[in-house]
Amino acid sequence: MRVVECVPNFSEGRRPEVIEAIVAEAKGVPGVTVLDVNPDHDHNRVVVTFIGEPEAVSEAAFRCCRKASELIDLNVHQGEHPRMGATDVIPFVPLGEMTMEECVELANRLGQRIAKELGIPVYLYERAARRPERRNLADVRRGEFEGIRDTIHLPERQPDFGEARIHPTAGATAVGARPPLIAFNVNLDTDDLKLAKSIAKKVRESTGGFKAVKALGVMLGERNLAQVSMNMVDYTVTGLLPVYEAIKAYAAEAGVGIVGSEIVGLLPLQALLDVAIQALQVEAFDLSQILESHLRSE
Amino acid sequence: MRVVECVPNFSEGRRPEVIEAIVAEAKGVPGVTVLDVNPDHDHNRVVVTFIGEPEAVSEAAFRCCRKASELIDLNVHQGEHPRMGATDVIPFVPLGEMTMEECVELANRLGQRIAKELGIPVYLYERAARRPERRNLADVRRGEFEGIRDTIHLPERQPDFGEARIHPTAGATAVGARPPLIAFNVNLDTDDLKLAKSIAKKVRESTGGFKAVKALGVMLGERNLAQVSMNMVDYTVTGLLPVYEAIKAYAAEAGVGIVGSEIVGLLPLQALLDVAIQALQVEAFDLSQILESHLRSE
Repeated sequence: MRVVECVPNFSEGRRPEVIEAIVAEAKGVPGVTVLDVNPDHDHNRVVVTFIGEPEAVSEAAFRCCRKASELIDLNVHQGEHPRMGATDVIPFVPLGEMTMEECVELANRLGQRIAKELGIPVYLYERAARRPERRNLADVRRGEFEGIRDTIHLPERQPDFGEARIHPTAGATAVGARPPLIAFNVNLDTDDLKLAKSIAKKVRESTGGFKAVKALGVMLGERNLAQVSMNMVDYTVTGLLPVYEAIKAYAAEAGVGIVGSEIVGLLPLQALLDVAIQALQVEAFDLSQILESHLRSE
Repeated sequence: MRVVECVPNFSEGRRPEVIEAIVAEAKGVPGVTVLDVNPDHDHNRVVVTFIGEPEAVSEAAFRCCRKASELIDLNVHQGEHPRMGATDVIPFVPLGEMTMEECVELANRLGQRIAKELGIPVYLYERAARRPERRNLADVRRGEFEGIRDTIHLPERQPDFGEARIHPTAGATAVGARPPLIAFNVNLDTDDLKLAKSIAKKVRESTGGFKAVKALGVMLGERNLAQVSMNMVDYTVTGLLPVYEAIKAYAAEAGVGIVGSEIVGLLPLQALLDVAIQALQVEAFDLSQILESHLRSE
């Protein structure tokens, strides 16, 4: 099944009626399921998660973007989170048999449509980026709405779709493709925060550990346990099992056991199947071996 | 999603047109997907596998049974495999959110219908058995068609549904519920068949090992590897991971590694999810955390 997750961020975290109006657009598209609506008052921003078949999801993203451009004015928007548009960012995430390349293609088509039909300039980012310096969203968004308004005419700020002038109220939007994020935490059988921090340092990419892993050592106050708290930013590069096993081994070196682990929120099925296949050393496995994969979807 | 697998066995493995006519009945029920048709000439028997929602699967099983009763005459049937009916056995297997209890209920309703509408006496077996001595299919089928014809009037051979006389051509049918079978093999990095046999002995239930595990030591001729070949008859009692890890540890005691493992044929998704959850020690996991679980099924 070709399935896409879309996690658009809109620059509104305080007016429930605006958030509801935007989310209603996604819910109105047949075949789209809204999984989560997560507004943040301080950030003045809402993160919406929906899934479905690619064309339906893209249509839902477009309609949400159009509604946000009608209801949100960046000139009067304030919040702690950096932002450049009423619809700030639209990432597509491949699930099931959908490929990253198909998500990049989807991002291109949606970006073009937003620019053409809504007059909002669009930057392609992450896996959809056409220029290496646009892979990182923070670089694309540098200067935010106000700064981009003043610099968009410069060659290096030229949007990928649309004219080189910002939408007067809806700003600019980044559209892209990325792997799913997985929030994965491992709880150590100790209250030694230093140990969690030192293990986090060993496993995270930024300090020489596993690729595509971000990690911090934190305390779980209620349980008085030290935790290695992670964002797995591309489970196809580094899966959950090798990181879990490394943490277990590092903890064992310090004479500490593992209490358990937590998967926070959603993750794609394949990330768990990968763990099972690796844990059992299955030599050749095909998704069609899963009984439920043969259920007719309609 | 409530999903059932059904794996009926029919007493025909030689006449393709009869097999096709029976399978066509299952394919004709909307929502039923036929996954496998596996005829055996020597056994003169065919094993058919289909899945779908419970009512659709039960309807498909009924129609197949009716067609088999029209086309197969047990009086002239010969084959190596023991058999008592044109439709010999109909097991329901719970998948997804379906429970064993619901499968037992489904077996009861189908058994009643077969007896009433087709005049075929039905025995409930395995998890659907109403008498402990009918749990084991081999006991239910003792004497086969010819023997049951002569003894069905005895109290202990009384069918669970239908009158105490065999159908003159279609015999009797066993309807039941059971967990899914998983064929799971672990390949040792050695040609030492004795080691595989001794490990099989340690892990199988019949010689004091894991509950619900059957195991043999065999040689993989082509690869010249010794293999522990298993049937996991109830993965909810003993999952794949503890058995794999035990085999790995027993092999290591003999200085032998694991080359890899094989899952032969189909298995339910939950069996793999259990492996992943155990391998990562996930403390609390809910199926709704899997992104794809939220896809609308229609």
